[in-house]
Amino acid sequence: MRGKEKFEKRVVISGVGLIGGSIAAAIRKRSPSTEVVGVGRNEVRLQKALDANLLTSFCTTPTVETVHNSIVVVCLPVQYITEDLRRFAKIASEDTVLTDAGSVKAAICHEIATDSTIAKRFVAAHPIAGGEQGGFEHSDADLFVNRNCVLTPNVATEGQNVSRVTAFWKSIGCQILTMSPEEHDRVLALTSHLPHIMAAVTTNVVGPQNLNLTGSGFRDTTRIAAGGPDLWTQILMNNSDSIIQAISEAEHQLSQYREALLCSNEQTVAELLRSASDCRRRLDAPETPGDS
Amino acid sequence: MRGKEKFEKRVVISGVGLIGGSIAAAIRKRSPSTEVVGVGRNEVRLQKALDANLLTSFCTTPTVETVHNSIVVVCLPVQYITEDLRRFAKIASEDTVLTDAGSVKAAICHEIATDSTIAKRFVAAHPIAGGEQGGFEHSDADLFVNRNCVLTPNVATEGQNVSRVTAFWKSIGCQILTMSPEEHDRVLALTSHLPHIMAAVTTNVVGPQNLNLTGSGFRDTTRIAAGGPDLWTQILMNNSDSIIQAISEAEHQLSQYREALLCSNEQTVAELLRSASDCRRRLDAPETPGDS
Repeated sequence: MRGKEKFEKRVVISGVGLIGGSIAAAIRKRSPSTEVVGVGRNEVRLQKALDANLLTSFCTTPTVETVHNSIVVVCLPVQYITEDLRRFAKIASEDTVLTDAGSVKAAICHEIATDSTIAKRFVAAHPIAGGEQGGFEHSDADLFVNRNCVLTPNVATEGQNVSRVTAFWKSIGCQILTMSPEEHDRVLALTSHLPHIMAAVTTNVVGPQNLNLTGSGFRDTTRIAAGGPDLWTQILMNNSDSIIQAISEAEHQLSQYREALLCSNEQTVAELLRSASDCRRRLDAPETPGDS
Repeated sequence: MRGKEKFEKRVVISGVGLIGGSIAAAIRKRSPSTEVVGVGRNEVRLQKALDANLLTSFCTTPTVETVHNSIVVVCLPVQYITEDLRRFAKIASEDTVLTDAGSVKAAICHEIATDSTIAKRFVAAHPIAGGEQGGFEHSDADLFVNRNCVLTPNVATEGQNVSRVTAFWKSIGCQILTMSPEEHDRVLALTSHLPHIMAAVTTNVVGPQNLNLTGSGFRDTTRIAAGGPDLWTQILMNNSDSIIQAISEAEHQLSQYREALLCSNEQTVAELLRSASDCRRRLDAPETPGDS
């Protein structure tokens, strides 16, 4: 595949926000002949996305014709994904494959696993990319370049459909990792969901009255806390078990700092900070894999 | 002062690292006729800073002549500042003023207050600017532009010296705020020291084994955790009372998330996230004061 990407004839994007819009932009940039069909509820917004040249057409009620020989990418908030997949499965033909871009995977995959007509054509995905600004107006055609995309295929998913969805995410720049939905959710609770909570906590402890004495450290550390609270509430609610564990571990480590400071235990403070510094510096080292 | 800055004839910088080097660069850029004298222990490093045109001269043992009619800026790690101020006070003449750039103020100011020969000519300062990369090689002549610089003058400090130190920090771009050392330390524990701990905790909870599944959110949230652990250990140790309070508040808020997730209390999670999002967005609003 290197240097020669395989593009779909038609990509149907359900939910044209930041992620859906960026997928559209990525396809439009790399494969001008691919049809990019937006599906959503708000015709005014969809028309604007069409005017912005992100879409080649749109509809509010997809039909068998809409999804014929297509890949359908559900880019809705996590709580709507399963319902939307059921809707598309009902109108799918044999050459329709389904994928999504949800940040949480186990809940969706478990529900879909009970319905083999969906499961055989659905490959759950999570492209690890985003931004704190929602809406297709912030779309970026290169948002997915060199980003990891985790696939969590079901045992019932047909092999050819896994290959096709893999090729799709690769075609917009992603590197593919495959793991179980549970493993994905456990790791993402640490690498994505906990950082959001930590940023939100830091912001709220500081409070609006002290913002004028913040510097670039606070600014970077809390940037993601500006993200949409409704979106993030659903992510946290849908991965609560793993997140509770991550929070407990963070509380434990905070208590280690607090107790070391209470006892003037300089060595423990230094060891905690050194361990974090060594770990974080690996991410900026040139040989580190992962996104940049 | 607007549009017409008053520059010192000679600036003596004790400790030519990132902050000292950036002060030197800022002066060299804005006032080429000002002498910039570096003071340190490592002649090889000082020679390199001279070669980089940050300094006009340097010495390892400052004398009466070195600091005559000069402003001395102590840019050492916080645990060395008081001792260094005593050294410079011994060789100071009537027209020598002293300031510093330490991130913690109460401990230094209390010690200095007991010695009126230092206190009358010392104006404690904290320019709220920096970076996670140490060393004068990362100097930035505009590091202080539009950044807040907090002054915490002693009651014994002579008024003309406060004016002179104020003019100095303004001359390299700072906006000046004045408060008590205790108030400074209490607020900075929230706005600077807690974010560092939160970034370090997030990094250590994730751990090196999960770095390949991190995204830009984790990257931004934890950037400052790469900062020098020795420097930060001293900052935390020197402001432990306020930091312990800040950590306790963060632990309390984390427990609110944990309990809300345990009880599937969606409304509480949403309220916590919305409050943080609203607060953080203020920082990016065009009318917000403070650094940018």
